[in-house]
Amino acid sequence: MTTIYHQVGIKAALRDVYNAIATTDGVSGWWTTTRGNPEHGGDLEFLFDDISVVAKVTANDPDRYIEWTVGGEQGEWLNTRICFRLVEQDDQVMVNFQHADWRAATDMLGHCSTKWAVFLLSLKDYLETGSGRPYPDDIHINHTVFN
Amino acid sequence: MTTIYHQVGIKAALRDVYNAIATTDGVSGWWTTTRGNPEHGGDLEFLFDDISVVAKVTANDPDRYIEWTVGGEQGEWLNTRICFRLVEQDDQVMVNFQHADWRAATDMLGHCSTKWAVFLLSLKDYLETGSGRPYPDDIHINHTVFN
Repeated sequence: MTTIYHQVGIKAALRDVYNAIATTDGVSGWWTTTRGNPEHGGDLEFLFDDISVVAKVTANDPDRYIEWTVGGEQGEWLNTRICFRLVEQDDQVMVNFQHADWRAATDMLGHCSTKWAVFLLSLKDYLETGSGRPYPDDIHINHTVFN
Repeated sequence: MTTIYHQVGIKAALRDVYNAIATTDGVSGWWTTTRGNPEHGGDLEFLFDDISVVAKVTANDPDRYIEWTVGGEQGEWLNTRICFRLVEQDDQVMVNFQHADWRAATDMLGHCSTKWAVFLLSLKDYLETGSGRPYPDDIHINHTVFN
């Protein structure tokens, strides 16, 4: 199994960082349009133009930890876990991110790792400036359709 | 062992992408001020304000693959390998990046993973626009001194 790791530090209230990850409006503001039930056990859908990612909320510990486990027909993402651990530290909130349990370290994993960094910086901007860059306004990291 | 993976796709000639990674002037344009001998077996030094990272060039296959193995007193970076594999694909050059052989998946690894994404996007801008954002003009990902 292989895991993507990231960390960003955000100047915002812990509760605001939590809400940006634990509500559909929040996630829609920095990753992509999101709908469904963000409570523990709920089903979420993350919408892109050509595909949607479906996931179950497999952990939701307020102000501390959120985990989504990917289902549906997601190819390499199937059964991977997307995890956010929040820690107040040095007058900011550290978001310790993992996208865990990839079956293989493919080029696609490298692509998604860079893309997660882009979206976590979008989360940071969303909370610190009021404006993120969710899909399809995200920073492009290559020149393919899937960029 | 744990590895950081990234991928960016760059619209530039393969030789230009290679030179941006395989020369000290190149690396200075997107990561940080770099000096030393970038040939296979050479020693490189990457300079930051308070520390410098020293590494040996453990592979240099023109237009294909470059690898630096970290030495010195680098704490968690000691004996890790920083690897760039170049592939022409879809009318661009894919840079498949790894920072391999971390002994543990610490929060520091997450920090460095996000930071590598920032610098690889700086590499992309350096080649596509003529201007990267090397240290200390890089994008900050938190609010500590080490940002």
